[in-house]
Parts: sequence; structure tokens; C-alpha cells
Amino acid sequence: MTFEDQLNKYAGMVNDELNKVFAKKECLQKSVYDAMEYSILAGGKRIRPVLTLAVCDMLGGDIEDALKFAVAIECIHTYSLIHDDLPCMDDDDLRRGRSTCHKKFDEATALLAGDGLLTFAFEYITDFFAYKNTDAKTVLRIVNEIAKSAGCAGMIGGQVVDLECEGRSNVDEKTLTYLHNRKTGALIRVSVFAGAVSAGASDEQLQSLLKFSDNIGLAFQIQDDILDCVGDAEILGKPIGSDEENRKTTYVTLLGLERAKEKAESLTLDSINALSMFGDAGKFLAETANYLMKRKS
Amino acid sequence: MTFEDQLNKYAGMVNDELNKVFAKKECLQKSVYDAMEYSILAGGKRIRPVLTLAVCDMLGGDIEDALKFAVAIECIHTYSLIHDDLPCMDDDDLRRGRSTCHKKFDEATALLAGDGLLTFAFEYITDFFAYKNTDAKTVLRIVNEIAKSAGCAGMIGGQVVDLECEGRSNVDEKTLTYLHNRKTGALIRVSVFAGAVSAGASDEQLQSLLKFSDNIGLAFQIQDDILDCVGDAEILGKPIGSDEENRKTTYVTLLGLERAKEKAESLTLDSINALSMFGDAGKFLAETANYLMKRKS
Repeated sequence: MTFEDQLNKYAGMVNDELNKVFAKKECLQKSVYDAMEYSILAGGKRIRPVLTLAVCDMLGGDIEDALKFAVAIECIHTYSLIHDDLPCMDDDDLRRGRSTCHKKFDEATALLAGDGLLTFAFEYITDFFAYKNTDAKTVLRIVNEIAKSAGCAGMIGGQVVDLECEGRSNVDEKTLTYLHNRKTGALIRVSVFAGAVSAGASDEQLQSLLKFSDNIGLAFQIQDDILDCVGDAEILGKPIGSDEENRKTTYVTLLGLERAKEKAESLTLDSINALSMFGDAGKFLAETANYLMKRKS
Repeated sequence: MTFEDQLNKYAGMVNDELNKVFAKKECLQKSVYDAMEYSILAGGKRIRPVLTLAVCDMLGGDIEDALKFAVAIECIHTYSLIHDDLPCMDDDDLRRGRSTCHKKFDEATALLAGDGLLTFAFEYITDFFAYKNTDAKTVLRIVNEIAKSAGCAGMIGGQVVDLECEGRSNVDEKTLTYLHNRKTGALIRVSVFAGAVSAGASDEQLQSLLKFSDNIGLAFQIQDDILDCVGDAEILGKPIGSDEENRKTTYVTLLGLERAKEKAESLTLDSINALSMFGDAGKFLAETANYLMKRKS
């Protein structure tokens, strides 16, 4: 199977499950389901859930069980985008080439759709009867790690620091890395964690995989900064130059474009090196790291 | 022990644990922790967590284990208040006699503090090592029910319908009850569920207790409507007459004050009758139902 075939296979599993889960519901609170569906079925690369499935698959775990965690993590990712786009946060009108949730619906509905996706994620992965080969303690361990990663020590914490850094001219690289390790990195890390732990990874395997994820997490963010600077608005599905407009400190403003590119490449190489213990089986993950590095959106 | 002593004992356990959990944290994202602490330590009656502890205690369960669920439910309740108070929702300035979270901090911080409390609730109750006498499957069963109750089929769904009913003059009692069974009722119901299931309640015990909770849940909301109409703003900690001002349909506008009072009393009586199988052991819960009926805030 080519890399693209395997990527499409995993992403297809995620999309099929999301389509099933977010099928139209008839009830008095239909509007919030519509908004949730609109945002989560808007597309996107499904990178996080693909990582969960790929890691689990590589380790010979039950990929259907891992799919539960994968879908929940994508719900949490989507909720964070909806809330980040709100007027009191980044105030964005476009996301993945379409109107943001609060533009398509309204602010109250978008707020509640975000709350709904976050809450649904935890409902969905705590339904013990839906698992075939994962014991209850392992489910709890993964759910706990997902909550930690999404919380104030993780993703939310990163967003808080991001907001506080806005318009400040004295943000240093240490702070920027602290911020992105949480805002973007934490959820990427737990995507890999979920795939690994659900497949019964050894401690040694888990540590190598987390090193892989930490490196691609930061490389991913640096690439985001680079794309905001030199990307194609049409392919990105959002305007470029927004960081400069918002006077945001990014890896590009701190390091310059060339050194930012070098850093992203070096982190990608480190992530691939972290996979050495898996030999040929690690090929898809290594190719994913390269794919993320070369992406245009 | 008098009713007040027992109530204070349970509420004290909840407050002690909340104080411990929300102790000051030094980190770059401190502002969101401050906002979470501000809102959750603002007081409040702690009715939901008290119910969880009281039910567990009555059934001879491990009250320290039940305290985990109790605290998580109070976090979810508080997150819902923070988000409901936001300008795009009810736009309220006062809550429990103090500035609402977004007034004290700002909108972005309040939004993230709400997200943080919701996420923390799930982190806190999925830490399996913190339980002494509850097995992993039972923990998952309770977490799943809490997520369902807080989600779009429960609390969030109720808020959606509430927003959609605002300003509409043709809201009937069926819709109002649908709304309140979700917006307020679902979390009260799961508070009782968590206490019962963590204590290993039989199906028969659980069904009786859920009947109890469904009746006090609705009585509680009717009493809220009555207090908004005839209450004392000082004791309530918020202005009265807000429902009329917002042209909200309430049990008072639908039934009139007298019939609303009768309905609340009759539901309270039903809730107490549902406890008959517990005999004397059900006394505290019965007194709680009366206490909620007679409250002034």
C-alpha cells in the first residue's frame, strides 16, 4: 500500500465513524447538533486521529477500539477550533475554507456546539460496552490522559498563554515553545499515546513514540507559522499574513524564515530517528512526519 | 445529627476538596486557574454534590470515592453557569452576589475557564488510582452517565431550547418541562445516580432514587421561577424580575403564582414518597427535598 493509500484508509475510517456519529438528529435542540456536524464534517486533515490509528496498527492493537479514542480526539480538536474562532478569542471568519461556526450559525450556538463536542468526546469514549479488546483500566488511563492534554495544563493552557502573548513584543522562544507544546503539541502527543496504550505498548515503545510525537508537534506548529507567512491562501482555506496583522510572535518572526525552516526540518528528522526501534513497521509514521513537513495547508 | 449539621458536613467535604483542588497554581496560564477558582469557590449551595454524598452515605457506600463524582459534577455545574452568563448567552453581570466571571476577568478568560472546568471534571474522575473501593467498570459507567447528562441530550440541550424559547410567546408547559428536565434536571439526576451506583445500589433502589431526583429537579426549577418573581434580590444575590424583563416563559407565567407553588409542593411530596423503600435512612434526602422547596435563594 502506498503512503497515500494508507493515509486515506485511516482518514476514511475516521470520516465514516464521524458521519455515523453525527447523523442528523431530530429534536428540539437540533440547532446545536447541526452546528457540531457542520464543524466536524468540514474536512480537515484528520492528522490526530490518523496518528492514533497508525500507531495502534503498527503495534498490532485493535484498530476499532483505537478508533474510539481517535474520534474523541478529533471532536476535542474541533471544539477548540470553534471556541478559538469566537469574537472574544481570535475573531476569525474563515476556517477550512468555509465560514466559521459562529458566522454560519450564531455565537451562542457556536459556544454550545464547542461545549457539546467536548462533552460528547468524553461520553463516547467512556461507553465501556463499545470496546472489544480494551479493559476498563486501560480505557480510564487513556481517557484521563486525553482530559489532561485537553485541559489547563495542556491545550487550554496553551491558548491562554497565546492570548496573553498577543501584541507583546518581548515573547522569547522559550515562551513560544511552552505555548505551542501545549496549544498544539499536547493533543498530538495524546493522539500517539492513545494509539500506543490501547495497543498495549511497552514503556520503551511508548517513550520512543512520545519523543516522535513531541518532535512532530513542534515541527507542525513551525510549519503553520511558515505557511501563514509564505503559504497560498486558497490552499490554506484562510487568509495568510494574519500573524503579522495580529502582531503575533511566531517562529518566523523570532528566527527568520530560513532558520524556522531549518528548525522544522531538524525536528522532523529527530521525530523519524525516534522510530528506529520499530524498523520497517515505523515507515508510515516516518512518512507522516515528512508529509506534515511538506504540507501546503 | 440535625439536618443542618448533616448538610453542612457534606457541603464542608465538598468545599474542602474544592479548596484543595483549586489551590493557587503558579504558571504562565495562571489567569485561567484564577478565574476557575473565583467561580467555583464563589459559594453556592452545593446541592448536587451534597445529593451524591447523601445518597452514597445512605446506601453504605464509600463516601470518599463518591466525593470524586460530587466534585466533578459541581465543576460541570459551575462551567455551565460561567458560559450561560456570557454576553452571547444570558449576558448576566451578577452571580451569587458577585461579578460574573467575564465581568471580573474578561470574556476570553471566562470562556476558557468554563472549558477548563468541564475538562478538569473528566480528568479528575478518570484518575483510577484515586479510588479505593470502586472498580474501573463502575467508574466508567458513572463517568459515561455524567457526560451524557451534561451533553446535548442533557444540560447543553436544555440551554439550547431555553435560548430558542426566549422572546417566544407560544411556549407551552410540555416544552418548558422538556427544557428544564435537561437544563437543570439532568445534572441533579446524575448527582443522585453517581451516589447510588458508586454505592452499588440495586436496580430497584436506583429506580426509586431516580424518581426522587426527577421530582426534586423539576420542583427546584419551579421554585427558581417563583423566587425570580417574589424573591428577595439581596438574599438571591441577583436581581429579581429578570424573567419578566427577558420575556421568558416560566412556570409562573404559564400557571400563575399559586398553581406554580402547588405544583412545586406536589412534586416535592412525590419525591419524598419515592423514598419510602429506604425507611428512616431516607430521612435526610426527604428533608433535603423540603429544604429545596422552602429555600429563599
